[in-house]
Amino acid sequence: MKKENQQVLIDALPQGKLRAGDFRFEWASIPAVGDDQVLVKTKAFAIAAGTRAGLQGSASYAGAPIIGRVMNGSGVGEVIQSHCAQVPVGSWVKAATGWQTYSVHNSSETELIPRSHDPIAYLGVLGITGLSAYFGLLDVGRPRDGETVMVSAAGGSVGHIAGQLAKIKGARVVGVCGNESKGKILRSKLGFDAVVNYKDDDFREQLKDATPDGVDVYFDNTGGMILGSALFRMNIGGRIVCCGVVSQYDTDQPAPGPKGIPGLLINKRVSMQGFLIYDYADRFQQGRAELQKWLSSGHLKSLVDPVQGIDAAPDAFVDLLHGGNIGTRIVELK
Amino acid sequence: MKKENQQVLIDALPQGKLRAGDFRFEWASIPAVGDDQVLVKTKAFAIAAGTRAGLQGSASYAGAPIIGRVMNGSGVGEVIQSHCAQVPVGSWVKAATGWQTYSVHNSSETELIPRSHDPIAYLGVLGITGLSAYFGLLDVGRPRDGETVMVSAAGGSVGHIAGQLAKIKGARVVGVCGNESKGKILRSKLGFDAVVNYKDDDFREQLKDATPDGVDVYFDNTGGMILGSALFRMNIGGRIVCCGVVSQYDTDQPAPGPKGIPGLLINKRVSMQGFLIYDYADRFQQGRAELQKWLSSGHLKSLVDPVQGIDAAPDAFVDLLHGGNIGTRIVELK
Repeated sequence: MKKENQQVLIDALPQGKLRAGDFRFEWASIPAVGDDQVLVKTKAFAIAAGTRAGLQGSASYAGAPIIGRVMNGSGVGEVIQSHCAQVPVGSWVKAATGWQTYSVHNSSETELIPRSHDPIAYLGVLGITGLSAYFGLLDVGRPRDGETVMVSAAGGSVGHIAGQLAKIKGARVVGVCGNESKGKILRSKLGFDAVVNYKDDDFREQLKDATPDGVDVYFDNTGGMILGSALFRMNIGGRIVCCGVVSQYDTDQPAPGPKGIPGLLINKRVSMQGFLIYDYADRFQQGRAELQKWLSSGHLKSLVDPVQGIDAAPDAFVDLLHGGNIGTRIVELK
Repeated sequence: MKKENQQVLIDALPQGKLRAGDFRFEWASIPAVGDDQVLVKTKAFAIAAGTRAGLQGSASYAGAPIIGRVMNGSGVGEVIQSHCAQVPVGSWVKAATGWQTYSVHNSSETELIPRSHDPIAYLGVLGITGLSAYFGLLDVGRPRDGETVMVSAAGGSVGHIAGQLAKIKGARVVGVCGNESKGKILRSKLGFDAVVNYKDDDFREQLKDATPDGVDVYFDNTGGMILGSALFRMNIGGRIVCCGVVSQYDTDQPAPGPKGIPGLLINKRVSMQGFLIYDYADRFQQGRAELQKWLSSGHLKSLVDPVQGIDAAPDAFVDLLHGGNIGTRIVELK
């Protein structure tokens, strides 16, 4: 059988920081399609910071990694063979394709993408990251008109949407990211009121200046030092939305938590609430409909940061973990 | 003017751990009573772990400490001179007496103790600590029948009440404290289902064994290592009530926060909520009425741990910070 399925495998659990060499490429056979299954040809897959946590070797919501298996990730693609009438050949679906060119799925584990929607959006603004921003900010953070919302990893796939949703809700929005060019885009194109650079020596001072009325909602994608700094800016009754911990993914030695926990939570009567987007699955349609409405009206802009070809995936992941992306990083296949 | 008012003053901010020598004694004049003020002769004052935080020199909800001032604390006593008809001579009041034998207060800053109530209870189960247990557990933690509630500093003034309230609400209750004799009292007299000793080498193992169904509500009086251990036992959707940080009070070098924050909060969809009891002031009467009802019915027992005479106060505070108390530590004056 011809080996036409190009795959990226986990070759080793990273020691310290992730390297492209922790992955290897392989050609495999295209898997057989069983009853009620479909064969998907990947159009694009997302590179998600959260999957780095799985490579730490401990169980996480991302599942435990297995050396020698295809790297996990969400993808979109076209159904090219089908044993299921509900998902016919020619449909576009979203599925856990992993980093490979072909994959077989039970039909119940695919999500049909309506023809009216851009499939690529299902990896970003209409996918898990956009929905995380939507439910995390609106259900957990609950910003009110005139409040200040701080967002870390503000140029990331979740962060750039969360910040814009806060603007839509009438909040003042302060983003945190790691380079000036991202900051400019967030301010000029996406309407962030201020952006501060956590790599600057005077980050805490910048953050203080950017949040003269304190912070009511902190949408935390990073944990670590930025969370520690945010704690000092929280207003009484503030809410911290715990969405991600990107500061601690790319290491085998996670840092301790911020000193201010739990002391500052008490002094300021602050809540921290962790959430996983999968708990909101029965409301995804509602979330997508509202996100699509704001996209159509121009109130919400989705940034996608594509790289071309599966060969580029490992380097694109390393780069993402160093903050190289703006918006949703995807790998587009031919 | 005769100096009849014995006082304990803050002599120095502690370096490292608190020592009795960080306080000094002084005799002062009994202050004059102004318009709408009352003179209170202290019957007893409470020694509260939280006031140690104030001695770290940074502002906290306890207020910044001032060297040379009377040590702060809540007390109860009899009004022996009054310029206010609503608080006549002979009344019993609770007030911020500090550590001294006489104090003058604006009448609005005193709280009249009904003749039907034991004044000493206003330093414990019907005072700030009992009310903290009541609102912290019931409003913030919201335990449900059959859930597991974990309480740290379980032998303390707040903890021993919080644990019993959880039992009243039908929960399985696991206490954490630092010595076996306290553990025995909590189990045999107060109905705790299990008590584990955080000083034991196998504490984490003990905690795991004591919480076979995980932890739904963690009432945290300590922060630090015990909070870190609790995070690993939390069930999905668990709630952490942040009430106190006694593990970090007796030091000038607070430790970092637990490594699992925010990662474990996300994986388990756990919330942490800090609260201050003063925010519940308009519901104190409701809380006291219910606590009194349970005291009267025998469902709730209040432990008081008295020492005699103001001279004993500094040592009693040091001992409290080393976990020497069981229940509410008070200093009784003649």
